[in-house]
Amino acid sequence: MDPRILEAKIIARDIVSLSRAITLNESSLIADNILIDDILARNVDALDQSIVIGITGIPGVGKSTFIDVLGKYLHDQNLSLAIFSIDPTSELSHGSILGDKTRMIDLSSLENVFIRPSPSSNRLGGIGINTHKNIELAKIAGYDIILVETVGVGQSETTLKKLCDVFILLQMPSSGDELQGIKKGIMEIADFFIIHKADGDLKLAAENSKKEIESALHLTRNENINDRIFSFSSVEKTGLEIIWTTIKAFTDLLISEKRFIQNRREQRAYWIEEQFKHLLIQNCIEKNKTEIETTKSRTLNGQYIPISELIKKIR
Amino acid sequence: MDPRILEAKIIARDIVSLSRAITLNESSLIADNILIDDILARNVDALDQSIVIGITGIPGVGKSTFIDVLGKYLHDQNLSLAIFSIDPTSELSHGSILGDKTRMIDLSSLENVFIRPSPSSNRLGGIGINTHKNIELAKIAGYDIILVETVGVGQSETTLKKLCDVFILLQMPSSGDELQGIKKGIMEIADFFIIHKADGDLKLAAENSKKEIESALHLTRNENINDRIFSFSSVEKTGLEIIWTTIKAFTDLLISEKRFIQNRREQRAYWIEEQFKHLLIQNCIEKNKTEIETTKSRTLNGQYIPISELIKKIR
Repeated sequence: MDPRILEAKIIARDIVSLSRAITLNESSLIADNILIDDILARNVDALDQSIVIGITGIPGVGKSTFIDVLGKYLHDQNLSLAIFSIDPTSELSHGSILGDKTRMIDLSSLENVFIRPSPSSNRLGGIGINTHKNIELAKIAGYDIILVETVGVGQSETTLKKLCDVFILLQMPSSGDELQGIKKGIMEIADFFIIHKADGDLKLAAENSKKEIESALHLTRNENINDRIFSFSSVEKTGLEIIWTTIKAFTDLLISEKRFIQNRREQRAYWIEEQFKHLLIQNCIEKNKTEIETTKSRTLNGQYIPISELIKKIR
Repeated sequence: MDPRILEAKIIARDIVSLSRAITLNESSLIADNILIDDILARNVDALDQSIVIGITGIPGVGKSTFIDVLGKYLHDQNLSLAIFSIDPTSELSHGSILGDKTRMIDLSSLENVFIRPSPSSNRLGGIGINTHKNIELAKIAGYDIILVETVGVGQSETTLKKLCDVFILLQMPSSGDELQGIKKGIMEIADFFIIHKADGDLKLAAENSKKEIESALHLTRNENINDRIFSFSSVEKTGLEIIWTTIKAFTDLLISEKRFIQNRREQRAYWIEEQFKHLLIQNCIEKNKTEIETTKSRTLNGQYIPISELIKKIR
């Protein structure tokens, strides 16, 4: 396929072409990656488009349900929507998102909604350079909103922050020792806190959790973000409009203060460094392959090769 | 200090000198690392000494208690003992082992027992090249038994396997859906399974767990390892002798079949590859530092630098 035609079709928001481009971006063939990256380079101004919203939370907090509800709401506001789901846990890497997340079927059938699950080929099982470029492709396609769902495990939160303009943490309602379950790092970087499942028996617990998070953030964060902490039920759906209006006002402020563009460029600088280092390391290991193998087989034969000798081999 | 004197003192099992050597090994100064590695290279035959026993399990399973009980038993058998505790969780990286693990105080006061907690300087918070060389130092010091304790989280089990001759998994007793809690990978690589806390209310659950693990392993592993699955109480201490005799018979078999030495060499080959790659990568990133910085600042200024351009920069 002619890259120029693919490019034109992505810009025209052709879903099949966008999917194709993402597959090429995730390909293990460097020629495929180069083709996609050249498209991105030719559309650098379009990379300032869209609002990227990262949504994270522990398994079971209801991320898919929330995204389903938020997605339908955004669709009703005539906003176009791309959803990326990055889940290093078994459910998603094995099954397809349509198989596992039946709720999202409804959403995917809507016009101007694009859904892409985490690629099973992603050996790291998480966020990488490819993920960032997938989102860049969706920006070029001109989606108004890009939702990025990740499971909140390990170090993934800080990397998610490198992909999105707005970072939402979904939190379980719980009575008692509330903040035990939240990792310190995420408390400091999340822009919005949504205590989910605030219905039925959990309604009161959600309200208590909200208050506890408010007072904890009051102590730990410089800015007052109380108006960005919500309790919410994806069943009752009350207050979704207020949540969305607040997110919109937040991003509008970022844009007006030029922090939005600045943040995007810093993210791109972070990922280009990752990419460059990755290429350098690959090349370096490849060039020294024979020397590495010799060192290993000498060791297997009972020799001890000290660091001093290894250093001499390095030019 | 004269490296030759340090070397002689390590071989003479002087605890202060061994501690000193471990500190130099973990130093961020390459000259310190070289000094230690040269000592190891001069004592390559001594690296076949000792029996290294890795002990892992989830937090709360009672690893410290078990090591305390096993350690005292081994000491009573006139065996010298070095204990390394590698814990990436906050308790150990912050506090000292003596502060957190009061039980081990008793053990550390015994003669011929050396205890070393995980260094707080280990930025990776887990097992690395340094850990392997620390254990190599303890081998040169001629400890009969080296116990390595790690918290069973993430990928640490497979790396622990690269450090030890015998791999013990401590497992919690539980009724019902037993094997949910055990990761598949570890079931395949552990040499011994000990269902811990088999006393009081948990005694029956421990026996059931033992049976479940037996039948699960019967299905998944080629060799029959039923005689290497135990339930045990560190309070009652019944059956410790049988456990130890079985471990001893297991290592004796490894030694007689030459698998012991073969395994040690394969481990060393694994770690030398890691070390070599680490040095190569460091050097490569350092050499390209300016180019990386230029690429980043161009990106911050709004340019998009595609992969094709990065590749041209790599020689």
